[in-house]
Amino acid sequence: MIQLDFHPAGRHFLQIPGPSPVPDRILRAMSYPTIDHRGPEFGALGLKVLDGIKKIFKTKHPVIIYPASGTGAWEAALSNTLSPGDTVLMYETGQFASLWKKMADNLGLKPEFLGLPGAEGWRHGVDAAAIETRLRVDTGHLVKAVCVVHNETSTGVTSDIAAVRRAIDAAGHPALLLVDTISGLASADYRHDEWGVDVTVSGSQKGLMLPPGISFNALSPKAIEASRHAGLPRSFWGWDEIIEMNKNGYWPYTPNTNLLYGLAEALDMILGEGLDNVFVRHQRLAEACRRAVRAWGLEIQCADPAVYSPVLTGVMMPEGVDADAVRKIIYERFNLSLGAGLGKVKGRMFRIGHLGDCNELTLMAALAGCEMGLTIAGVPVAGSGVSAAMAYLAATPAAAAPLKAVA
Amino acid sequence: MIQLDFHPAGRHFLQIPGPSPVPDRILRAMSYPTIDHRGPEFGALGLKVLDGIKKIFKTKHPVIIYPASGTGAWEAALSNTLSPGDTVLMYETGQFASLWKKMADNLGLKPEFLGLPGAEGWRHGVDAAAIETRLRVDTGHLVKAVCVVHNETSTGVTSDIAAVRRAIDAAGHPALLLVDTISGLASADYRHDEWGVDVTVSGSQKGLMLPPGISFNALSPKAIEASRHAGLPRSFWGWDEIIEMNKNGYWPYTPNTNLLYGLAEALDMILGEGLDNVFVRHQRLAEACRRAVRAWGLEIQCADPAVYSPVLTGVMMPEGVDADAVRKIIYERFNLSLGAGLGKVKGRMFRIGHLGDCNELTLMAALAGCEMGLTIAGVPVAGSGVSAAMAYLAATPAAAAPLKAVA
Amino acid sequence: MIQLDFHPAGRHFLQIPGPSPVPDRILRAMSYPTIDHRGPEFGALGLKVLDGIKKIFKTKHPVIIYPASGTGAWEAALSNTLSPGDTVLMYETGQFASLWKKMADNLGLKPEFLGLPGAEGWRHGVDAAAIETRLRVDTGHLVKAVCVVHNETSTGVTSDIAAVRRAIDAAGHPALLLVDTISGLASADYRHDEWGVDVTVSGSQKGLMLPPGISFNALSPKAIEASRHAGLPRSFWGWDEIIEMNKNGYWPYTPNTNLLYGLAEALDMILGEGLDNVFVRHQRLAEACRRAVRAWGLEIQCADPAVYSPVLTGVMMPEGVDADAVRKIIYERFNLSLGAGLGKVKGRMFRIGHLGDCNELTLMAALAGCEMGLTIAGVPVAGSGVSAAMAYLAATPAAAAPLKAVA
Amino acid sequence: MIQLDFHPAGRHFLQIPGPSPVPDRILRAMSYPTIDHRGPEFGALGLKVLDGIKKIFKTKHPVIIYPASGTGAWEAALSNTLSPGDTVLMYETGQFASLWKKMADNLGLKPEFLGLPGAEGWRHGVDAAAIETRLRVDTGHLVKAVCVVHNETSTGVTSDIAAVRRAIDAAGHPALLLVDTISGLASADYRHDEWGVDVTVSGSQKGLMLPPGISFNALSPKAIEASRHAGLPRSFWGWDEIIEMNKNGYWPYTPNTNLLYGLAEALDMILGEGLDNVFVRHQRLAEACRRAVRAWGLEIQCADPAVYSPVLTGVMMPEGVDADAVRKIIYERFNLSLGAGLGKVKGRMFRIGHLGDCNELTLMAALAGCEMGLTIAGVPVAGSGVSAAMAYLAATPAAAAPLKAVA
Repeated sequence: MIQLDFHPAGRHFLQIPGPSPVPDRILRAMSYPTIDHRGPEFGALGLKVLDGIKKIFKTKHPVIIYPASGTGAWEAALSNTLSPGDTVLMYETGQFASLWKKMADNLGLKPEFLGLPGAEGWRHGVDAAAIETRLRVDTGHLVKAVCVVHNETSTGVTSDIAAVRRAIDAAGHPALLLVDTISGLASADYRHDEWGVDVTVSGSQKGLMLPPGISFNALSPKAIEASRHAGLPRSFWGWDEIIEMNKNGYWPYTPNTNLLYGLAEALDMILGEGLDNVFVRHQRLAEACRRAVRAWGLEIQCADPAVYSPVLTGVMMPEGVDADAVRKIIYERFNLSLGAGLGKVKGRMFRIGHLGDCNELTLMAALAGCEMGLTIAGVPVAGSGVSAAMAYLAATPAAAAPLKAVA
Repeated sequence: MIQLDFHPAGRHFLQIPGPSPVPDRILRAMSYPTIDHRGPEFGALGLKVLDGIKKIFKTKHPVIIYPASGTGAWEAALSNTLSPGDTVLMYETGQFASLWKKMADNLGLKPEFLGLPGAEGWRHGVDAAAIETRLRVDTGHLVKAVCVVHNETSTGVTSDIAAVRRAIDAAGHPALLLVDTISGLASADYRHDEWGVDVTVSGSQKGLMLPPGISFNALSPKAIEASRHAGLPRSFWGWDEIIEMNKNGYWPYTPNTNLLYGLAEALDMILGEGLDNVFVRHQRLAEACRRAVRAWGLEIQCADPAVYSPVLTGVMMPEGVDADAVRKIIYERFNLSLGAGLGKVKGRMFRIGHLGDCNELTLMAALAGCEMGLTIAGVPVAGSGVSAAMAYLAATPAAAAPLKAVA
Repeated sequence: MIQLDFHPAGRHFLQIPGPSPVPDRILRAMSYPTIDHRGPEFGALGLKVLDGIKKIFKTKHPVIIYPASGTGAWEAALSNTLSPGDTVLMYETGQFASLWKKMADNLGLKPEFLGLPGAEGWRHGVDAAAIETRLRVDTGHLVKAVCVVHNETSTGVTSDIAAVRRAIDAAGHPALLLVDTISGLASADYRHDEWGVDVTVSGSQKGLMLPPGISFNALSPKAIEASRHAGLPRSFWGWDEIIEMNKNGYWPYTPNTNLLYGLAEALDMILGEGLDNVFVRHQRLAEACRRAVRAWGLEIQCADPAVYSPVLTGVMMPEGVDADAVRKIIYERFNLSLGAGLGKVKGRMFRIGHLGDCNELTLMAALAGCEMGLTIAGVPVAGSGVSAAMAYLAATPAAAAPLKAVA
Repeated sequence: MIQLDFHPAGRHFLQIPGPSPVPDRILRAMSYPTIDHRGPEFGALGLKVLDGIKKIFKTKHPVIIYPASGTGAWEAALSNTLSPGDTVLMYETGQFASLWKKMADNLGLKPEFLGLPGAEGWRHGVDAAAIETRLRVDTGHLVKAVCVVHNETSTGVTSDIAAVRRAIDAAGHPALLLVDTISGLASADYRHDEWGVDVTVSGSQKGLMLPPGISFNALSPKAIEASRHAGLPRSFWGWDEIIEMNKNGYWPYTPNTNLLYGLAEALDMILGEGLDNVFVRHQRLAEACRRAVRAWGLEIQCADPAVYSPVLTGVMMPEGVDADAVRKIIYERFNLSLGAGLGKVKGRMFRIGHLGDCNELTLMAALAGCEMGLTIAGVPVAGSGVSAAMAYLAATPAAAAPLKAVA
């Protein structure tokens, strides 16, 4: 028999860039009793989460909550706005951008993939100028949507979404702007309305600190208008009926009640801490992590400091070192899970997640596990990353007030 | 602020036909720490649930587990096996059969809807002979699939799936047989392989006693073969990549880890009790419930005793009584949630769920709540349904052994 | 191996007069992380529960919270106020009064036991006049304390505590009044200050809806004064150091942190419902239960309607029927736990608890289980108790407002 | 209102020497439904924990489990074996030895306190030779018991219990040997039978990883014999009735059911890891911690390396540094709770707990928090303790096998 409720002595450190550790408080909320999804109590829950999630996306327009994991929300964004054979301009920033492109192919769209060639392309964010250049030549407006990833989970590189919007506008092009911030939401600053995004795709298991299982489409009026004419077949993902039922806090089909309890709690936690405080906390931990990597003498996967991710840091291994072998040592010896290198960088790097319910000492534990693991694996390191991170954290104050039992 | 973690004194009785009450044991399992869905522990979990769920469907072929609620699995069944414009033969047994048909329309299929006219059609199961007759005239084999609902959640009527298969075979027709047993699985006897079903659709929040959020497609080799040529666009729902990754217990995208913990526990509970014992328990509680309804002098929605549902019982109100007003009284006075009449029978009936983690006294509580509520609402009743149900339960033994702390 | 986290299908109905079922909400509170019992957060928790518990006892004086079960609080009441060889006047109302007397013997006190002879004495409350009579002849004031049980858990009989106080005063006697309301607190009206009680003893696992493990001494200034001179040796139970440390919300030794979390939640629940509403709810359920017993044609253990317990009802079996055999049938067939007859009434009666987190349908379930069990056991019953209880509950409104998700 | 279910972003690190962090697995077990403590299921639970706890104490004789916190078990050990006015020989190793002596005074015993004078005495374990010397002159055998603390929670110093037994035997003295290992049990090697201890006192909230609320007396036949004649009054703490009822797994009064669930789970966890593996793990983490302290150039409170505690490490501050001010910085800046200096060493040292459910990275997090806090507080440190600890942990293998999802 398989024993699921076990772990070796002490806590496992789950420092992958998602799913991030689910706080006990959210796990407790998820254990509230399942209720009638058509009863009066449910409506109050529905309205609460539908309202709160708008604050997280920084939008005044509808946000769709799907009882499905993030990949589904990718499909929803495409199938609600596009028609078979439509050209979409996508940008290769890493593995998840590549998978989204593959999905567009599967759905019968014609994705065009911009980006630098080879693995080097995975070390930079979106080049908005390249998008502008491409759109300018599309005088027939065949390109129906521009799709970019805000925070590439596979690399630790973010992209400047506002710049992409400016590029589209500068080209005078009517394409929709679809953005994936599955791993960025509620960790990295994101502004759906201000940045002029038409559909933002996100999920539950990253900055929102929930288990996987719900995902989001934040909409613009232009996207809603597009959905009225989009020809891709859709039913489960269809926005219209959901928007209609959501007005009273309900869904056209059975919603994921217990995860919505968790979402309500996550919203209380995040908005209670203050969204901006959350962002500052992530930036600070990310900087501490990067200082550790530099002190080890290792390279950060993201080659452009302007777009370092506050969510995760990709750590490149020296030539000849198998990153997965290092990860395995760290996992087995120190109860620490790190993210693997994916696709083009498989075996070449590992990823340290520092998102969601993370604080200074959790990060320090993770860095200590990495540093000891590197030593055991025989990877030559220049100095103590742990010491560098401690120096930084000790010298900089935390963003938000600490313990506050009495309100 | 909205307070979610509250209830008035005492336990709420959730006797809707799903979501059914989630046992504490499953809620606890769902609170195990979220793990790396690409790490070694996860593979063991994945293989366990993928193997166990086959026993529930009584199949040797792959069962797909989606991180999405049941409606998504409907779409998956259609989009993996059919092409735009395909004719599908569906059968109107109630609201959920109607919604599935509407989905087929939305996806660009051509559903043809058999069934008796008016509300009377909602009181009977599928007429296999009618299906055979229809298929016999389809000499060109334009009908690509026959879609039926095994347990109509909106009415409490089941259908004889083996008979439908015999009808298709008798007609010598190659159509696929797609069956929805979202609310029947693990409550009513179901045999995917023996009955020759090609795709069975189900969900988590009924007989499996989980919160909503995962759903299933059980496949046949013929269905898998069909998926190689089916032309409906699909990506998230695509079987092929999932089947491939499932071989090692993983998924191509982030699975719903915490609900899979719950599923593993549910499998232990159901297979521990014995699937056949579970069915006998449901049949016994359903019979007790029907005796109560008859003693009240009210009509059971299902007009054919051969296909009474073991999952729920639809109770028709006398002419002139608003069933929803009665339900409201029962909810507000007695902390008891019942299912509403849907679609054609809205306001004409209510539904008592007796599925999943239900036992004799929980049912008695529900029946007492109904009986008191009917009295308060001024609905004339012939006699005590509660007494009739007690007489039956006291006279018949429980299926399975009770408490067994020591194994 | 012993499997603890199991139960047969459906919920167990724990209808013993304590421990009462612990609401999920309290179980969740008890799973908050254990904190430093000397840190700043703890003080806030301590002050909250120390303040709230006073409202439950209706006192302005200190209430001691022991990290020990109720029997310990009995010992604390005696050892803090009395000296070896002291005479204490106790009153036999049932098994728990008898056990408290046995404890007094064990501690070297001289208990004198009033009460009616034989089992008949267990069907009545305290006779305050008898106490007055006895105290009037104690002109030398050898009696140092009068000890009575407010709600006899073994019988379902309460006693009029205010009358006992008046009796002591009428006799002009200085004896302390010590009262056990372990099973009465937060279910039956209780007024520590108004009734002039010197020490009230209570526990967590009854009306407070917590698991066993903490217990209480509510004090009067006179009791505190007595403790300065009381000669029984004590350390763990000593009030003085606890009172001193409690001023800031701390304890002199390690408190039972997680149960205090549960207590804080229980206080929120009870004071949120309103203590008076809680009492009315208990009275109403108790009356419904008694109507069932009468309809069955069985005798209620309590012979005096003026002192029926709102917490539990003792049901006497006809001559020749073994009450424990009936209980066993009910337990094994219907997943329902009832209280056994204890001491003088062992095998002659069983006890139905209707306290704490109990509502109408839970009671109806319990009564249905009893009625079916009586039938199976062949106990002749005059009519349907379940019907009688339903008639009463349908005719009387609930005390407090029901569901209120939005505050 | 006070908000209890909160914490700032990320996990709190509770590194006090008890209560130690309660693993989620135990919290889940504690949320099993409370059952009838006189029903058949309970007996199975009772026998399981009563049997398992003997393995932890390494005894074949009865172990009493009290529904009361550890201080109560101190009182139980004294009151079951001694009579008013009895002389007991105690040994001052720190604050808890002093409190136990104070309790003996309170109970009317005559404790005699051995030990080195001043704070220096708190840096060493028990001097068995001094005990032997004292007993040799007690030719009249007035000393009825020798009481020592095995693991001084206030200092991080252990004592050699076997040596104390040898000393008593060498003196040919009949005194009982009573030992407090409240904070040592299940973390430091302990052998009740082999070491000839008569009563061992322990609690739940340390190596057993439970919340506070249950405590233990492990007995010897000689202790049981002594209890037949001991004259201190007792009732709640009395062994005889408990031993009798425990034979079938029950208690004479209401036990702490939910904590016993937790205890059953803790036993499964500890015996599953292997008690010896648990000890090795503690020794290894303690050594890493001490290396950190030495690298900082700070003094370890325990002056004798032979009796370093595997449970906690006392860290002395340089002259003029207020240890509590340092602790406060660490708590507020880094979400880390450390133990305060108590009694004679208040403000002079802090204590790092590394017991129970602790592993390498949790310890590293704690040490990083200390190191950063020392820096911020301006305490001069010689070098990086974190680096020293990492060097040790990377160079030494873990005791037990790590993750094992499949059994």
